[in-house]
Amino acid sequence: MKLTILGCYSATPRAFTNPTSQVLDIRGNLFLIDCGEGTQVQLRRFKVKFSRIKNIFISHLHGDHFYGLIGLISTFRLLGREAPLHIYGPKGIQEAIELLLKLGNSYGGYELIFHELTNKSSELIYEDDKVTVHTIPLEHRVYTNGFLFKEKLGERKLDINAVLNYDIEQCYYRNIKLGKDVPNKAGKVIANNLLSLDPEPPKSYAFCSDTAYTEKIVPIITNASVLYHESTFLEEHEHLCQKTKHSTAKQAATIAKQARVGKLILGHYSTRYDNIECFKKEAQTVFSDVYLADDGKEFNFS
Amino acid sequence: MKLTILGCYSATPRAFTNPTSQVLDIRGNLFLIDCGEGTQVQLRRFKVKFSRIKNIFISHLHGDHFYGLIGLISTFRLLGREAPLHIYGPKGIQEAIELLLKLGNSYGGYELIFHELTNKSSELIYEDDKVTVHTIPLEHRVYTNGFLFKEKLGERKLDINAVLNYDIEQCYYRNIKLGKDVPNKAGKVIANNLLSLDPEPPKSYAFCSDTAYTEKIVPIITNASVLYHESTFLEEHEHLCQKTKHSTAKQAATIAKQARVGKLILGHYSTRYDNIECFKKEAQTVFSDVYLADDGKEFNFS
Repeated sequence: MKLTILGCYSATPRAFTNPTSQVLDIRGNLFLIDCGEGTQVQLRRFKVKFSRIKNIFISHLHGDHFYGLIGLISTFRLLGREAPLHIYGPKGIQEAIELLLKLGNSYGGYELIFHELTNKSSELIYEDDKVTVHTIPLEHRVYTNGFLFKEKLGERKLDINAVLNYDIEQCYYRNIKLGKDVPNKAGKVIANNLLSLDPEPPKSYAFCSDTAYTEKIVPIITNASVLYHESTFLEEHEHLCQKTKHSTAKQAATIAKQARVGKLILGHYSTRYDNIECFKKEAQTVFSDVYLADDGKEFNFS
Repeated sequence: MKLTILGCYSATPRAFTNPTSQVLDIRGNLFLIDCGEGTQVQLRRFKVKFSRIKNIFISHLHGDHFYGLIGLISTFRLLGREAPLHIYGPKGIQEAIELLLKLGNSYGGYELIFHELTNKSSELIYEDDKVTVHTIPLEHRVYTNGFLFKEKLGERKLDINAVLNYDIEQCYYRNIKLGKDVPNKAGKVIANNLLSLDPEPPKSYAFCSDTAYTEKIVPIITNASVLYHESTFLEEHEHLCQKTKHSTAKQAATIAKQARVGKLILGHYSTRYDNIECFKKEAQTVFSDVYLADDGKEFNFS
C-alpha cells in the first residue's frame, strides 16, 4: 500500500495548501479518498496516473472534501475515459453531480455509478479479490463516514529452493500458492508447508476525517496498520471542537492508542497554525509513532 | 478600468494553467467574470481583495467557467462575509448552487442574490452610478452570454486655474463638476465651459467567451475600448470550431476589426499549443492592436 497526500488542510484552499484528498495505491489499484477543490491539479502535479482511479470515496459533502469531484469527473470525460467510475458518498451526491452535468450538457463518454451511503453503522461497501472497504461512521456536523481499507490475505509464496529440491513439476506451482499439498515427480504427496512460505501479513488503512473525538470508532479500526485521523486543532483550542465537531492532535493520538494501530498520520490542520510540527509534538505525548500529512507527501506502508 | 486575468486556458485546469476567470476593477468596484475551478486560489495568489467583489458574472455552465463558483461562495462564508453577493448567470445556476449548499448544510452568513439569464437578445442586467453591464449573446454549445461593461460619462473636471481666475467661491465647485454655469463673487454668471474640462472618455470592456465566430455580436460591441474574444484554436484547426463552437485567433481579430474596438485581448487557448505567441501572430494579420491574456497578467485600460 502506498498513500499519497494530495491535500490535507481544513476549510479553504490557499495558494500553497490544498483541501483534503488522498490516493491509496493497493497493489496498483488506485482509490481516491475525498476530493476537495483543486484535486485534479494535485493529481497532475504529483504525476498520479489518474486514469487508473476506478473508485472514489467521499467522506462528506462539505466543500473542502467534495468540491473538486465535479471537475475531476468532467476532466475524465474530456480526456476520453471509457472505464466506469464508481463513486461512494453520502446520499445527495448523485443528484448534485448529475445536475451539474446536465446544466453543462456534459454527460456521457463513460458510466458513472453512484453508491449512496445512509447507514449509521459500519458496513462493507466495496470488495474485490484483494481488498475490502468498510465505512467508519464519524461524528461531524453532517453525515460523514471514514473508510477502512483492508487487504485480503495474499497467496502463499513459492519457496523455490524447496520446490526444486522436492522435484515438483511446474504445473503444480499454482496449487502450491493456493495452499494445496502436491505430488512430486515420483508421485509422493508433499505437504504444502514444506513447499511454501507465509504470505505478507495484510495491511489496513483507516481514514477518519472529519470527526469529533469518538471512541465508537475504536472497535472498527482496532489493529489497523495505519490510521489517518484528523487533528484540526491543538489542545489549547479544544473548546472549538465541540461546536465544529473536530478533534485535537491529542484526541487523535488517544484514539490511535486505544485502537492499538501501527502508525498514526495527522492532518486536516486548521490554517490558524503556522507550524504543523506542533501537532506531532502534542500527539506524541500520548502515542509515539506519529507522522504528519502534508501536500504531496507519500507514505509506504511496510 | 483594470483587468486581471486569473485564468485563460480552455478545458481542464493543469498544474500551471487555469480555466477562465477575470477580475475587472472599475473605479475600485470589483466585478468577477467567470469562475473556473481554482479561481479562489488565483484570487489569493494575485492578492486581489476579493471581499470587495459584489457581483459575479458567469457566461455559461461549462466546468471551466463555473466549477470554482461554489468554492468561492463557501469561502466567503467561512471568512465571515456579510455583504450580499449578486450572481448573474444562465438559468439553473441558482438550483445548482443552492443544492450544493444544502447538501453541505452551509447556508447563511450573507445573502446570495441570483439573477438568472434566459434572454437571447442583449439586455441591461446591471447598473449603478458609474457602470452598466449588458449581455452579449454568444453562440456556443450551451446557452452563453458575454458581458459588456460600460463606464458612464464621469463628472466634468474642475479647471482650478480658471476657477481661481474667475474668482468663484468654493461652494459652487460641485455645481461646476455637474456642468452648471455659476456666479463669481461679483455676481456675474460664468459659463461652465470656461470653468471646467471634459471628463475622461468612458471606457468599455467586452468579454466574449466561449463562442463560435458570429457577426451578430458586432453591433453590440462596436467601439468598445477593449475586446476579450476567445481564440481556442489557430486557423489550421478551424475545422474543429464548427463542432465545438469555438473561434480561431483570426476570427477573433476579424470581429475586432469589424467592431472597430480599441484593443483585442486573446484567450481561452486550447492546451494543444505549446506557445501562445502564435495566436497573436495570426490575429495580427487582420488587426494590429492584439494582446495575449495569460494567468496573472494585468491590463490597464488607459
